[in-house]
Parts: sequence; C-alpha cells; structure tokens
Amino acid sequence: MESPIDARRRQMLFTSVAAAGLGTFTPTVLAQETAKPKPKPLPKYAAWKNAESVIVHSSNTIETRRSAFGTSMIVPNDILFVRNNLTPPEQDIVADANAWTVEIAGVRHPGKITVADLKRLGVATLPTVLQCSGNGRGFFGHKASGTQWKVGAAGCVFWSGVPVAAVVESMGGVAEGMGYMTTTGGEKMPAGVDPKTVIVERSVPVQNIKTALLAWELNGEPIPLAHGGPLRLIVPGYYGVNNVKYVDRLAFTDRETDANIQRTGYRVRDIGVKGAPDQPSMWEMSVKSWITHPAGEGPVRAGTAQVSGVAFAGVNGVKRVEVSLDGGKTWKDARFFGPDLGHYAWRQFVLPVEFKAGGNYTLVSRASDTAGNTQPELRQENERGYAHNGWRDHGVKLIVT
Amino acid sequence: MESPIDARRRQMLFTSVAAAGLGTFTPTVLAQETAKPKPKPLPKYAAWKNAESVIVHSSNTIETRRSAFGTSMIVPNDILFVRNNLTPPEQDIVADANAWTVEIAGVRHPGKITVADLKRLGVATLPTVLQCSGNGRGFFGHKASGTQWKVGAAGCVFWSGVPVAAVVESMGGVAEGMGYMTTTGGEKMPAGVDPKTVIVERSVPVQNIKTALLAWELNGEPIPLAHGGPLRLIVPGYYGVNNVKYVDRLAFTDRETDANIQRTGYRVRDIGVKGAPDQPSMWEMSVKSWITHPAGEGPVRAGTAQVSGVAFAGVNGVKRVEVSLDGGKTWKDARFFGPDLGHYAWRQFVLPVEFKAGGNYTLVSRASDTAGNTQPELRQENERGYAHNGWRDHGVKLIVT
Repeated sequence: MESPIDARRRQMLFTSVAAAGLGTFTPTVLAQETAKPKPKPLPKYAAWKNAESVIVHSSNTIETRRSAFGTSMIVPNDILFVRNNLTPPEQDIVADANAWTVEIAGVRHPGKITVADLKRLGVATLPTVLQCSGNGRGFFGHKASGTQWKVGAAGCVFWSGVPVAAVVESMGGVAEGMGYMTTTGGEKMPAGVDPKTVIVERSVPVQNIKTALLAWELNGEPIPLAHGGPLRLIVPGYYGVNNVKYVDRLAFTDRETDANIQRTGYRVRDIGVKGAPDQPSMWEMSVKSWITHPAGEGPVRAGTAQVSGVAFAGVNGVKRVEVSLDGGKTWKDARFFGPDLGHYAWRQFVLPVEFKAGGNYTLVSRASDTAGNTQPELRQENERGYAHNGWRDHGVKLIVT
Repeated sequence: MESPIDARRRQMLFTSVAAAGLGTFTPTVLAQETAKPKPKPLPKYAAWKNAESVIVHSSNTIETRRSAFGTSMIVPNDILFVRNNLTPPEQDIVADANAWTVEIAGVRHPGKITVADLKRLGVATLPTVLQCSGNGRGFFGHKASGTQWKVGAAGCVFWSGVPVAAVVESMGGVAEGMGYMTTTGGEKMPAGVDPKTVIVERSVPVQNIKTALLAWELNGEPIPLAHGGPLRLIVPGYYGVNNVKYVDRLAFTDRETDANIQRTGYRVRDIGVKGAPDQPSMWEMSVKSWITHPAGEGPVRAGTAQVSGVAFAGVNGVKRVEVSLDGGKTWKDARFFGPDLGHYAWRQFVLPVEFKAGGNYTLVSRASDTAGNTQPELRQENERGYAHNGWRDHGVKLIVT
C-alpha cells in the first residue's frame, strides 16, 4: 500500500510551490530548539514524565526533545511523546486494567471481552515506531494548524498484547464483506456536541488484522493512561492516530467510519483545501530519518565525533541511510548499529566524522527503504502539515569550536 | 569458557548432599512471595523506583517481583533490580555525566579520559541480561549468607556506550602480557578499613575486550546512579558483579586483582569452605529460565492460559525451552515470542495450556543452550548460594479455581 504522501503525489494534486521545489530551507534547530521559552507544566495525567526531556506544547501534546533521544533503540515511557485528540479518561481506568472491557463487533460471534480474558487468548511482543501524523509540522512555512512538532512526536517502543487475529479467531472470524477494522476510543464525549465531530474512531484496511495487536503493555509496564492504557490498538507501520487509545470497541465494518476524524480529518490535501473522504488518509508512514547526535543544542568541539540518528519506513524495512555534513551536497553511507528489531521498529545509524574548528556544518540524513523509496529533499506542502519526510528541513545546524 | 558451576562440577568438589541429588524441592512461591511483611522503604538514591513492583531487601539490594516482569523483552529502569556492594557515591556524579573521568591503564599509551571524549570514540548498543551471582539464593536450604533473592535479581536491558576495544585502540592497544581486564568502581572507601577488603575491583579474562562496553546509557536514558552511572562496564554474558559501576579505572593486568571481592569473594565452593583463588570465579552465567506468568500470586481461573517466562544462557544463545505443568513429570516445548535480541539477551517463551478447575499445578521450565547445556533439576549446593539454575526450585505452584 502507498503512503498517503505517495498516494497524493500520484494524484498530481501538488500546489505549484511544492511542484516547483521552492520549499524554503529551515533547519533552524539552533535558534528554535535552544531558545527555551518559559516551559508549560506537565498535565496531571503525565506528571510522571521527565520534564527536562520533553517540550509541553499543550495539555494534550508533549514532544520529546531531539537531544533526549538516546542510542538504546527504545524511547522509555517517561520521555515518550504524548498526543491526545481528546482529554484522556479518568486515571482510575488503569487501576484495574484487567477489568477493562472491549466490545468486538463485525465478527461471526460478536461480544464483549475483558483484558483479563484477552490475556488468555495469546501473547505477542512487537517493537514499533509510534509517530504522530503531524511530526515535522513545525518545519512547514504556512502555519499549518496543529501542534508545531519538530522531530520529537515519534518513538520506537515495545508493545505487548494479544494479536487481533487471535481475538477474531476466538469469535468465529471476521463477518463477510468487511473491508475495514474500525476502532473506537473510550474517551468521554463532551456534552452538547455531536459525537461524530469529536469521537476518536479510526478505520484501517482489514488486512491489518495480520499484524495488529490489542496491547496492554508498553516497554515492560502496563500502558500508562497517557499512552492509551489499559488497552490500545497497535497497527504496525501506521501513523499514531490509527493506534486508538482506551479501546472501547473494535469492529469489522464494510466501510470507513463517518466520524470526522476519519471522514475529513487526517486527509492529505493542498493548502487551503478542506478535508474530504477522497483524499489520501494518514495510514502508512513514509520512509524517514533524522539525526539525534549531535542535536544542535549548542556548539560542539572539533575532532572526531559520532553522528547518529534513527530511521524507519512504516511497513517497509529501512535499507540504507546516508549522511551529509554540508546540507546535502555530498553524502556518505552511515552504518547501522544495535539489533535489528524488525520492519516496524527504527534502526539506529552512525557515521564517524571529523569536525574542524571554526567549521559550520549542516547535518542531514536520507533514508531509503526496502520498497525502493528514498526520502525526498523537500516537504510536500499540504494543508495540515502531515507526513513530513523531506530530509532538508530535518537537518541540524552545527557550530564547531 | 565454562560457567563457574560447570567448572566446579568438573573439579568434583561436590558435597555429598549435592552429589546424591538430595536438594529439597522448594517452589514455595505462594507462601513466600504473597505473604508480604511490612515493606522496607526504598533508599533515597532509588526513591524513583516503582515501590509496588520491587522487594526492598536492604538499602543496597532491591529485587524485581516475579509478578512485575512483563512481556516486552526489556525490564524498565524503574523496576530493575539493584545490588550494590558498597554505598553508592553521591548523586552529584551523574549531574554532569560527561565530566566523569576514567583512567585507562595497561595499554601502550595510558591516560585519563572523560565520558564526553569516550562518546567521540564510538557508539554501540547491546541488550544483555544483568543478573546477580546470588539470584536464586533464597531457594537454598542452608541459609547461605547474603540477600535471599528468588528470581528477581535479573533483568534484560539495553546498554549503550563505547566498545572497550575502540577505547583501547585509541590508546595504542593492550600492553604485552596482559591476561585480564581489571576494573575499579568509584565508590568512596570507608575510613579505617584496608581498601583491599572492600573495594569493588573485578578482573575478567582479557578476551572480553571483544564484547565489553563502557556504557553511559540504560534503556534509553543516562544510567541512573543506582545502576552505575555515569559510566559502567558491561561484560556481556557475565554475572552482575563483573559489570563494575561508577568506573574509576579500567586496567589491563597480568594477573587477577588481589582485592577480596575477586581473590576470595564470588568463588564457588562447598558449604562450610572458605573462599580461595583456586575456586571457580563468578564469571560466565549458566543457562537458566523461569516462568513469569502466572507468577503464583493467588489462584488463577480455569480455562485457556498463556504460560510464559524468560530464558538466557550467558555467552551462549538459548536454543530450547520446555515447560512442565506437573513439576517435571511431563514436558512440552514452549514457543519463543518477541524479537531475538542476540545471545546476551533473554528470550521470552510461551506455552498455551488448559487449566482445569480445582487443579493443582507445579509449573517449571527448563532451558537448553546452543552449547549443549541444559538446566539441571537440582541446585548445586555451594557455600554462598551462587549460580542457581536448577529448574525445580524456580517453579511456581498454582491453584486453579
């Protein structure tokens, strides 16, 4: 399946600006990431996060600092980004996770099942990259509405739960004619609002049943409320929004849900155009990479250094990462390090370099995947600033002393 | 290389009790793990640990509860066991980790180097099982002195740091005639005591240079003080004590250190015998496994269940895990799940089973490694209760309602 950006490219709906390749070069990491305005406090449900390693954009959006990414493959829970579409439910829903009930519909024998009983059906462990559709929105030039994420609305984490396939099998299999898996979050609906306009309900193609999990564990601990506990749907290789939190209902359906978040939201379209169902949906993630070390927060010393970062490719594996120190004029192949955790995880890459005193460097990385895709140089302009995988904007400007 | 228990077996130094296989069967999980005495408070340097998931034995020994192990491959920092041989240094040594200095000796160009400069030399990421030599001591019958660990003085974690080989290469290579890598911890020596009697200084065979790391990161974050930050030596496949914390000095030496912790400590010998340098040292870990789900804390419901656990084999890979529900009378092969993180990590195993109402089950697991070793049924009796990998003691008694 195509990524939404590839699908959009195919549709030839580019704005003239993007088609002409006139995206401006804005790896303004030094200016924007080190000038720290008075930080917003962590919201109560995420008070346990490491405040120094994150940027609180709002009570529902928390970003991992580029400088906080380590080199241990995974992003630990206390620095992992948070993005909620609605206010999370009350904390008490994770107090007895096993008692949480989910409705399974669109199967031959529909019914409700508790997390305790899901745990009896099977267990699987899967590392995936979780990434917000708007990661990189902060690099767009047209003030796309939404959180101005740079690189930190993403993380590689371990999920553990039951394969959706095992749950469906225990309920007689998918009912006939169902092309989608439609999952509903358990957030409380605000009063006086048409639920369709706010409910978190997402549909993905039914073939994801082969890889999806209903997960109760994140990096070795019960999923915290901030990350969708007690039960979250994991659709490997898909953007974060499809990984529905606090799963209340999982249904196999003959069409996509008509909830706004699916019908008109998370659709890739030209700037100024309204969302509509015929536009590409934010499903599969595109190939992407960025440099995490050095992170560009302050000057670095001359001499040998290890330039490292992360790369992933949605449902495909990453095949190659190149690194440039001169903003893309010349490239060298980086080496992967750390274990290969499979297609849905990210790979770490490193290139040893020699930085010269007084030098000005623009570090960029460019990943290619096993399906033959390579990160483009420029972002694909689009109304909501989705799916940014242009390598130029994600660069790090560096001053060497 | 042989594990210390295998070496000891070869030396034919068994006590008559062990040789006759008369070890008593003590999988008394229900009685011992669920009867919670008033819990000791977490020590200040580890106050950030998840108190509900750990057992505080003393200010220097904290165990992960069997029921707290998840199924996400890794054990997160806040539930990982702690074992310090001395009081840890002051918290301020991790405040500026990059400034920490380590002396490198026994190389052609010896010298001191900061963590900041170590980071310039290379980067590697390695998942390993960290396990205390005395893990399982609580199952011995002779009241071996030391913390009465059951299964929770172990965890699989990601380390990131610089290969020791890269550091040594930058200093001209190992000096001639050096057979050991001898590493010294940075703890403050208590006043009025001969340092040799208390210092944490361990020697391992020099060939470990091929795999060892000087690590600054644990599971994606700077190593906390409790786990040896700012800098810890990681010797993959070796017992925890060799993974020296707060590394102050790393030296290549022609003989093992004569510090007590090496000369007479961490030596496998018969009950009642004093430690001596000719006894096997606690170096390579033996093949071992245990069941984590169900953990035996309370009855389980009849019906289908997933019996799962973890298995590892020191420097060898795990090849096979069998599970028995009847205390070892009959066995079935378990299936591995989750990614294979390499020889030094653990593998997760699972066996789907049917528990009958009113049944009494004794769940045990038995792992085999790629070198042809299989866990023995019984513990090998030894003075300090080291290296317990007998499968019988590690079982879980289960009541099904």
